[in-house]
Amino acid sequence: MIILGVDPGYATIGYGVIEKDNKGLRALDYGVIKTPPDEMIAVRLAMIDEAMSAIMAKYSPECVSVEELFFNTNITTGIKVAHARGVILLNAVKTCGKLYEYTPLQIKQALTGNGHADKHQIQYMVKMILHLASVPKPDDAADALAAAICHANMAVIAGRVMK
Amino acid sequence: MIILGVDPGYATIGYGVIEKDNKGLRALDYGVIKTPPDEMIAVRLAMIDEAMSAIMAKYSPECVSVEELFFNTNITTGIKVAHARGVILLNAVKTCGKLYEYTPLQIKQALTGNGHADKHQIQYMVKMILHLASVPKPDDAADALAAAICHANMAVIAGRVMK
Repeated sequence: MIILGVDPGYATIGYGVIEKDNKGLRALDYGVIKTPPDEMIAVRLAMIDEAMSAIMAKYSPECVSVEELFFNTNITTGIKVAHARGVILLNAVKTCGKLYEYTPLQIKQALTGNGHADKHQIQYMVKMILHLASVPKPDDAADALAAAICHANMAVIAGRVMK
Repeated sequence: MIILGVDPGYATIGYGVIEKDNKGLRALDYGVIKTPPDEMIAVRLAMIDEAMSAIMAKYSPECVSVEELFFNTNITTGIKVAHARGVILLNAVKTCGKLYEYTPLQIKQALTGNGHADKHQIQYMVKMILHLASVPKPDDAADALAAAICHANMAVIAGRVMK
């Protein structure tokens, strides 16, 4: 089973593609989609949509796992991230059809057993679980791989499932 | 020139199609897109995208005018509205290419000369400007027509223009 994990954003979007078989999990690809800050948000959304479509076409994931969004202090940034996340969800549901959403707490819990684990613990576990030589960079790519691993480990008990 | 105005939302999305020629402005169509509350947000986003595509295909607007989003108290609702607005912007930029965004203040100013006009004043002016027999219902459709009128009246001095 191929799973695409996504860490939503509008300037930088993390993605991580993993494969789950009877030998465990392995990373097929990971990285970030970047959009230029001087472009209008709608153009950046179209770029995100196009880049997502390219990843979907290349790996044909059976499931897409997307981190849920929580706003903290900056509402203006949050609106743009939510615009981008809407586009990511749309692309996933249109091209894959199996979309799963996990909260940061669920992802941390699934990877470390502790819903309040810090970033370094998560990154360390991503490296260990996927047998990588080093911690995946940048952080957004590691977060996306974490979302994919979370789904691989929680698929049976996934809370929010779309067929 | 045909202009599509959109009042973004995820449960109810207002749309209004107007035509501008040398005789002035007239309404071609208006109404709302509705999505079922018991569906997952990604499915609702796909429904919005599909309905938007149908409106775009039917009227081939030369411009799309979308109200900007401001969050008030409910962040959870706000995130969903922003997801939907992202999908609306993506659809507009992909299928039309000319997208304009106006703040509620700009729309009120363009219709009434007063950026702090209330809802009833806006609705009254929509009815008058488009020579309608009555105020367009529901409110979301009237707001979408207002966004379209705002662009028709402000096209020359539009602040945020995408070609």
